[in-house]
Amino acid sequence: MNDDPQAICTTAGGFLYFCLVLVGNITGRFTLSITRGNKVNRIASVYIATSLDGFIARENGDIDWLNDANKVVPKGEDCGFLAFMDSVDALVMGRKTFEQVLSFGQWPYGDKPVIVLSSNKVKIPDNLPQTVSWSSESPHELSDRLAMEGAKRIYIDGGITIQRFLSDGLVKDLTITVIPVILGRGISLFGDVDNDISLKHIATTAYDFGFIQSTYEF
Amino acid sequence: MNDDPQAICTTAGGFLYFCLVLVGNITGRFTLSITRGNKVNRIASVYIATSLDGFIARENGDIDWLNDANKVVPKGEDCGFLAFMDSVDALVMGRKTFEQVLSFGQWPYGDKPVIVLSSNKVKIPDNLPQTVSWSSESPHELSDRLAMEGAKRIYIDGGITIQRFLSDGLVKDLTITVIPVILGRGISLFGDVDNDISLKHIATTAYDFGFIQSTYEF
Repeated sequence: MNDDPQAICTTAGGFLYFCLVLVGNITGRFTLSITRGNKVNRIASVYIATSLDGFIARENGDIDWLNDANKVVPKGEDCGFLAFMDSVDALVMGRKTFEQVLSFGQWPYGDKPVIVLSSNKVKIPDNLPQTVSWSSESPHELSDRLAMEGAKRIYIDGGITIQRFLSDGLVKDLTITVIPVILGRGISLFGDVDNDISLKHIATTAYDFGFIQSTYEF
Repeated sequence: MNDDPQAICTTAGGFLYFCLVLVGNITGRFTLSITRGNKVNRIASVYIATSLDGFIARENGDIDWLNDANKVVPKGEDCGFLAFMDSVDALVMGRKTFEQVLSFGQWPYGDKPVIVLSSNKVKIPDNLPQTVSWSSESPHELSDRLAMEGAKRIYIDGGITIQRFLSDGLVKDLTITVIPVILGRGISLFGDVDNDISLKHIATTAYDFGFIQSTYEF
């Protein structure tokens, strides 16, 4: 259960939320329409690299430019990625990102729970760990379920999936590593939002090899 | 004359360039098609603020979000803007930016030469300094002319104008101040480019009030 007091709108609401979690845990179900008014499970984190012009991949999904950029990164330097991975309880990614990861040949996430979020059923290959699953839940539903199951932090990956969590107000923090290259076109990290979203800057690291990593909280 | 040795392709080319500048200065004209093969006057600098999602203004040109963000900036802090202004010999901006500056009521650039770049004639109000002029030159032509007139660094402002100088390979350095806000839509700093453009990161400053300023060279 997320115990961030700021996420609980009122004391009464917090109590209601607590009761609902209890009921949800007992019954295995959760009445989203009631909970959403009281508590948003803002447990999503984004950790992603972009070009200087804000693209996470080329139009066809290629990240060759990122692989090229990584060639200048000293051995052993992971820009905090492993520490970030250790801090998350589950990964959530869209179908396209999942298929791209599969194309790497080797499954990189071990037994870490991975949820492939897609409205259409996604077949999970038999050779993957049992912790990989498909879900068609909405970002809200998924955040609520994972929080109920004990997740404190989930890692959201993939363009559309990130945009869905962002526009639903479910992202708690965002770490962007800016690669010093302009691509001109591609898949944008950010999409349209209904209203301006102000963020709080937490930290920035300028790496010797030209990557700039900034973390923001919502 | 720009004396950056890297910008002169060959010794012979450099000599040819020197002669052409001499002729250009004497005749008052310059044969661009010949000089371009030998020398690109890469004297353009960009100094601009963007939202975290890469917009320099809302779709209608509004920068209310930037004005709001500036309210948290301590008095006397200009994020290096005056030092940058002191370092440039001229400003180049598009018609829309010019009209926006005019709407401020007071001309902020003193006697610094300002060129309003537009294919259509732009009327310069009589009350502005004589150093403000309109030009329909191409970015290459303008860079060449200003370099011949002695400019070492020119400040390029305004979305379309910046994109034209960028795509023509005329920008020498780029300082972006990222404001911690997501707008969702607006006028992008960057546009399409024919090929990836790699940059060299020079410096990044993380301000206490959440602005992140990074400078890159091309």
